[in-house]
Amino acid sequence: MKRNWRKLSLIICLTVLSLTLLVSIHADEGMWLFNNPPRKQLKEKYRFEVTNEWLEHVQKSSVRFNSGGSGSFVSRDGLVMSNHHVGADCLQKLSDEQHDYYRDGFHTRALDEEKRCHDLELNVLMSIEDVSERVNAAVKPDMSPEQAFLARRAATAEIEKESVDKTGLRSDVVTLYQGGQYHLYRFKKHTDVRLVFAPEQQIAFYGGDPDNFEYPRYDLDICFFRVYENGKPAKIEHYLKWSKAGAGDAELIFVPGHPGWTSRLFTMAELEYTRDVRLPYALSRLRDLEVTLAAYSSRSDENARKAKEDLFSVQNARKAYDGELAGLLDPSLMAQKKSDEQALRSKIIARDDFKDALGAWDQITQAQKLIGENARLYNLIEAGQGFNSELFQVARTLLRAAEEKPKPNRERLREFGEAGLESLEFQLFSEEPIYEDFEQVKLANSLTWLVTQLGSTNELVQRVLAGKSPRERASELVSGTKVNDVALRKKLYKGGASAVEAAMDPMIDLARLIDAAARAVRKIIETQNEAKQQAHAQISRARFAIEGTSGYPDATFTLRLAYGAVKGYDEDGKQIPFQTTFAGLYERAGEHHNKPPFDLPPSWIERKRRLDLNTPFNFVSTADIIGGNSGSPVINLNAELVGIIFDGNIHSLVLDFLFTEEKARAVSVHSQGIVEALRKVYDARDLADELTGKRPGT
Amino acid sequence: MKRNWRKLSLIICLTVLSLTLLVSIHADEGMWLFNNPPRKQLKEKYRFEVTNEWLEHVQKSSVRFNSGGSGSFVSRDGLVMSNHHVGADCLQKLSDEQHDYYRDGFHTRALDEEKRCHDLELNVLMSIEDVSERVNAAVKPDMSPEQAFLARRAATAEIEKESVDKTGLRSDVVTLYQGGQYHLYRFKKHTDVRLVFAPEQQIAFYGGDPDNFEYPRYDLDICFFRVYENGKPAKIEHYLKWSKAGAGDAELIFVPGHPGWTSRLFTMAELEYTRDVRLPYALSRLRDLEVTLAAYSSRSDENARKAKEDLFSVQNARKAYDGELAGLLDPSLMAQKKSDEQALRSKIIARDDFKDALGAWDQITQAQKLIGENARLYNLIEAGQGFNSELFQVARTLLRAAEEKPKPNRERLREFGEAGLESLEFQLFSEEPIYEDFEQVKLANSLTWLVTQLGSTNELVQRVLAGKSPRERASELVSGTKVNDVALRKKLYKGGASAVEAAMDPMIDLARLIDAAARAVRKIIETQNEAKQQAHAQISRARFAIEGTSGYPDATFTLRLAYGAVKGYDEDGKQIPFQTTFAGLYERAGEHHNKPPFDLPPSWIERKRRLDLNTPFNFVSTADIIGGNSGSPVINLNAELVGIIFDGNIHSLVLDFLFTEEKARAVSVHSQGIVEALRKVYDARDLADELTGKRPGT
Repeated sequence: MKRNWRKLSLIICLTVLSLTLLVSIHADEGMWLFNNPPRKQLKEKYRFEVTNEWLEHVQKSSVRFNSGGSGSFVSRDGLVMSNHHVGADCLQKLSDEQHDYYRDGFHTRALDEEKRCHDLELNVLMSIEDVSERVNAAVKPDMSPEQAFLARRAATAEIEKESVDKTGLRSDVVTLYQGGQYHLYRFKKHTDVRLVFAPEQQIAFYGGDPDNFEYPRYDLDICFFRVYENGKPAKIEHYLKWSKAGAGDAELIFVPGHPGWTSRLFTMAELEYTRDVRLPYALSRLRDLEVTLAAYSSRSDENARKAKEDLFSVQNARKAYDGELAGLLDPSLMAQKKSDEQALRSKIIARDDFKDALGAWDQITQAQKLIGENARLYNLIEAGQGFNSELFQVARTLLRAAEEKPKPNRERLREFGEAGLESLEFQLFSEEPIYEDFEQVKLANSLTWLVTQLGSTNELVQRVLAGKSPRERASELVSGTKVNDVALRKKLYKGGASAVEAAMDPMIDLARLIDAAARAVRKIIETQNEAKQQAHAQISRARFAIEGTSGYPDATFTLRLAYGAVKGYDEDGKQIPFQTTFAGLYERAGEHHNKPPFDLPPSWIERKRRLDLNTPFNFVSTADIIGGNSGSPVINLNAELVGIIFDGNIHSLVLDFLFTEEKARAVSVHSQGIVEALRKVYDARDLADELTGKRPGT
Repeated sequence: MKRNWRKLSLIICLTVLSLTLLVSIHADEGMWLFNNPPRKQLKEKYRFEVTNEWLEHVQKSSVRFNSGGSGSFVSRDGLVMSNHHVGADCLQKLSDEQHDYYRDGFHTRALDEEKRCHDLELNVLMSIEDVSERVNAAVKPDMSPEQAFLARRAATAEIEKESVDKTGLRSDVVTLYQGGQYHLYRFKKHTDVRLVFAPEQQIAFYGGDPDNFEYPRYDLDICFFRVYENGKPAKIEHYLKWSKAGAGDAELIFVPGHPGWTSRLFTMAELEYTRDVRLPYALSRLRDLEVTLAAYSSRSDENARKAKEDLFSVQNARKAYDGELAGLLDPSLMAQKKSDEQALRSKIIARDDFKDALGAWDQITQAQKLIGENARLYNLIEAGQGFNSELFQVARTLLRAAEEKPKPNRERLREFGEAGLESLEFQLFSEEPIYEDFEQVKLANSLTWLVTQLGSTNELVQRVLAGKSPRERASELVSGTKVNDVALRKKLYKGGASAVEAAMDPMIDLARLIDAAARAVRKIIETQNEAKQQAHAQISRARFAIEGTSGYPDATFTLRLAYGAVKGYDEDGKQIPFQTTFAGLYERAGEHHNKPPFDLPPSWIERKRRLDLNTPFNFVSTADIIGGNSGSPVINLNAELVGIIFDGNIHSLVLDFLFTEEKARAVSVHSQGIVEALRKVYDARDLADELTGKRPGT
C-alpha cells in the first residue's frame, strides 16, 4: 500500500497536486496535525487526554522515508522499523546478480556488516512553525494566478533558505488548509542509513497481488534499518518501547505516520475529472507498464530480479486505482459527495458573509478544465511518462541544475531551491545500479506510449524520435549516454552549463530538446493549481466559519496522527475477526498446495515446529490511513508499539474520497508476531532483544 | 499465433474487416488461392509443376477449424492434426475441476474413450465456384454505399441458400480481390469431432509468453482429433501421408492453410489509422483484459484453469499487436509503403484509362474517417467489448434470432442467413461450461471499460448500469439470467419473439436495451466498409491492368497455398540454424533451472533417456503465413507431411503489412520430433503407427 513518491511521480499523473483541505469529522476519522490534535474527540469518545509530552515523544519517534513511506525509531541505538515494501527501494538497489536481498532477505548480527543504502534519506520532524502570514503577505489581491504562484514560490524559497542557514535542519514550507495555512516543517535528516534485517519477500508480501489490499492476511511486512552518525549508530532520545502484549481487541490505538494524499474535499467537478479522465488514463498507463515489466521479468531470473520492485510498485498502484475507480463508479458514493456539496452551498447561500465563496466552485471547474486540456502533455513530457528511464531523469536533472542554480534562489524551479539542494545531490549522485538492457526496455515502452498518446505526426514526437522507431531510438540513447557514470555526473553538475553542453551527451540533448515545451506545460499546470488552491481556500474559510469545527487537512505526505480501535468487521454476513495467527498462515498455504503466490519460504516450512502457532500475526483497526502510511507504527495509550501498518483492506480504497469505518480497515503486523518470527524463524535474537529492551545499549 | 476469430471478435476491434486485395509478388511471397495457384513462380524458381490432382488432394486434405486455425487429415480413419493452441478451445471446454486436459494433456488408445468436443466444427473445402457476375449484377451503379451493401448481402444470402438446398454442403460466398471477385466456397462440415491426443500445455507452449513469436523454439504444439460420422470414425479419401525424413535444409515446402487477415494493400490513410488509432486502442483493451485475467488466475488453481485459454489468447494477441505496432512505428516500413503507393499513383496518372481510380484513395480516406468516428462505439456495443460475457452473447443471439428469423432470408443480418443457421445453432446450443464467478469478473471489467470509454454521463451507459456500479450490475445480471440452461435456450429459440419477451430475462433485457444503438452503429461501419471495398476494387483493377501480374488476394480466413524454403537466417550477425533438436530443449530448461515458463513436464524429465536427443524438433521456413495458419500442415513436393506450422518469429509480425523473407520466418514442429515424442514420451504407439501408415485401417 506504499506510495513511492519519487517513482510514482515518474509513472503516474500527479496533475492534481495534493490538495489540503479542512475536513469535517465523523467517528474515528482524521489524519491530524501534530500541532492541532483531536484532543476533544479523544476525550469524548475514549476518555483519553493527550499531553504535549506524549505528542512530542510520538512525533520525534516517527520517521519519514523519502523513498515513500513511514517508520519509527524502535531502539536507543538508532534502530528504525518500517515495512519490507518501504525498504524495497534500498533492498533492490543493494542487490546484484549474486545477492538478491529483496527476494531472499538479509540478516546480520554484526554492526559492521550492516549495509549502507545508496540513497535512502530519512526525516524526523523536529519543529513546526506557522509562517502563513509571511507567505500570504507575498501574494497581493490583484495578482493573476500566475503572478501569485511565482510570488508564493519566491517567499517559500526564502523562508526555507533562511531556516536552513539558521538551524542546519532540512526545512520545507508545507501548504495546509489550501493556503489557509503555511507551516514550516524542520526535519533532522539521516542519510547514513544501513540495512539490518529483512525477511524474504515471499513472507513479507505473502499472497502476492491476489491478497494485496485484502484481509484476512498473513504478511510479515517488516524491515529494519539503523541510522548512523559519524560512522556509529546514532543515539536516539525518542524511540518507541515495545509492547509485549501487542494490540488487543477493541483497544484504542494511534497511528503516527505520513499519509500521501487524499481528495476528500474535492468538488464534484474534480471528482468527475478523477473518475472520467485521471484514473482511467493512469490505469491504462499502469497496465501498459505492468504487462511490459511482467513480460521482461518472465524471460529470466535475473530480469525478474532487476524489475521486481518496479513491478511490485506498478501492480500495487494498479490495484489501488482499480479500487478507487470502482468507488467513484458507485453511484451511492457520488450521491453522498454531491449531497454534501449541496448542503454546504445551501448554508453559504443562507448567509451574507461568504457569498463570494459560491463563485469558487466555478473557478475550480474552470481551472480543472484547463488542467484536463494540458494534463496528458504534462504527464508525458514533464512528469516523465514518455521517458521512463533513470538515465533520462539523471540527464534532465543535470541539464536543469545547470540552468537553475545560477538564478536567484527565489526564481528557481522548486526542486532546485537552495534549501533542498543537499537532498537533491544525495539522489543525483546515488551509486544505485542502472541496468542498460532494462533501461532500453522501459524507454522503448515509454517512447511508444508517447507516440501513441500524442500521435506520430506530432512535431515534438518526430523530433524526439529523430526518424527512428521507438526501439531503435531507445537503444541508441541508452547505449550512447555517459551519465551512468557517477563521477561524470559530479563533474557536469559542478561544471555547470558550459560543461553540460560540451558533454554532447545524447540523453542530455534529448532532455534539452523537450525542455522548453516541458517547462511551458508545467507552468500552465502550476498556475491552474494555484487558481484551484485559492478557490479551495475560499470554500474552506466559509466552511470553517459555518461549521465551526476544528478539522484536519487533506493528506500531504506530512506527519499526521490517526486513531481508532482494533476491530473486526462484517462482510456479506460473515464476521471477519480482528486478528489472524500463524496457524492461519499455514492453513492458507495448505489450501493452495503451497503454490505461488501462496508458497511459504523454506525457512517457514523448516521452522514451523518451533513456532507458537497461536501467536497473533496480523490485525485490523479503524484508524484513518492511506498510501504513505505504510510502515507507520501502531501504538497504544502509553506510546508503546503494538504493531506496524502495512496495508488497508479493499474497502479502505475509497478513503481517498471519504472516510468510512463500516468495513474499511487498516491492516497491521502484530508486535507479538514480529518478535516470535524474529526469534524462532530467523534466530535474530539480538534484534529481538534490542526491540524488547532486553539488550543494553551499545 | 492463433487468431481465434469468434473470441477475438468479442475482444478486439475488427472494425476494419479483412480487405482482400491484389498483391504484387516478390520472392516466396503469397497466400495463393487454390483456383489460382502460383504455377509460374514455382516453375521458374523451383522447377516444380503443380498438377490439378496434387492441388485437389492437398485442398481436400486441409481442414479449417472454425474455432480459429487450420489442420489436416493425417489418416484414412478421420484423424486430424492441428496445434495444441488451436485445439485449446475444445480442451478448455472439456475440462472441469477434476480434469484439466488443457494443462495436463489427454491420451487414449480406445476409440470409445475419445472425447467429443462440445462445439467444434471443422470444414473441408470441396469446391470453388466463381459467382462474381451474379453478385455484381445485384449492385447498380447509381446505388449509395448503403444500398449497395444491402443489395450485395441479399444476393449473397440467396446464392448461399440455393447452394445449401442443392448440395447440402456448408456454402459461403467469399469476397476476394475486394469485390473484383466473389467465390462460392462449399465445405463438408464435421461436427462430431473427438479429442484423441494432446500433450501437456507446458511442452506445447514451452517457454510461454517470453518465447512466443521467438526462435529458436522447442514446442510440441500438436493436438489430434478424429472426425466421426454416424458414430464411427469417418473414412477419409484425401489425407496427408507422413514423411519419415521430414523437412530438410533448403527443401521446397508448401503450407496449405487458412491465414486470417492481412493488410498489405492498405492505403497510407488506412495504415496511419491502424498505427495511430486501431492498434493503440486494441492494445489498451488487451492489456486491461490481460491484467484482469492474470489477477483472477493468480487467486487459485481452479481460477487459473477456468481462465487459461482466455489468458493465452489475450497474451498472444497482445504480443502480436505489439510487434505490428512496432513495425508501423518504424519509419522505414512506412516510407516503403508510401513509396509503393506513390509509384502506383504515378503509373495511373500516366495512363488515360484508369484516371478515375485516383479518386479512390480519397474515398478510402473519407470512409476511414467515418469508421474512425464510430469504431469505438461499434467495438463497445456491437463487437461486444463492453459486454465480455458468454451469457451476454447467448442472450443477444436469442434476442436477434427471434427478430431475424421471421424476416425474408435476403434481409437478415448476415449471421442469421438460412445457409449458416445450422452452424449458428451448433454454437448456441453448446454444452460448454460457463462459470458464474468468471463471468462476473469479465462482465464487471468490461462494463467498467464501457463506462470509462463512453463516460459515465453517457445516456446509454446510464441505462446499461441502471443506477448501479459496474460490479453490482455485473453480479445482478449474471446471477439473474437463466440462459446458462441449454434446454431453456432451445425453448426460447424455438418459441421466437413472444417466448423471448415472456422470459423476462435480465441479460436478454440488457441485449434489447442496447440493440437499436448497436444495429445503428453496425450499419454505419458496414456501409463505410462497402464504400472502402468499392474504392479498393477500383484501385485493384487499375493495378492489375498496369502491372499485368497474376496475384493473390489479402488473407480472409479462406484456404490458401503458401510455399517457401526451409531456411535459417542471420540475426545481429549470428546465424540462426534452420532447426532445433530435443537436446536444445533440455539445454534451455537447464539454463533456466527448469523454472516456469521454461520448466519441463514430468513426463519429459522421466523419459529423457529414452529419446534420441538429436531428433529435429522445430524448424523455420520462408513460407508466407500469418495468424490463422496455426496448425497448417507443412508438406513436401509429394504432399507428404514434413511438419506443422505453429508460430512465426518476431520478424514475421510485420507480414500483416508487407512480405519480407530477410529474417521473417514461419516456425513449425518437425514430423520426426512428433513421432519420436509420441512413441518415447507418451507411449502413443497406436497413434504413431496410424500416422506413419504402420497400422491398418479400422
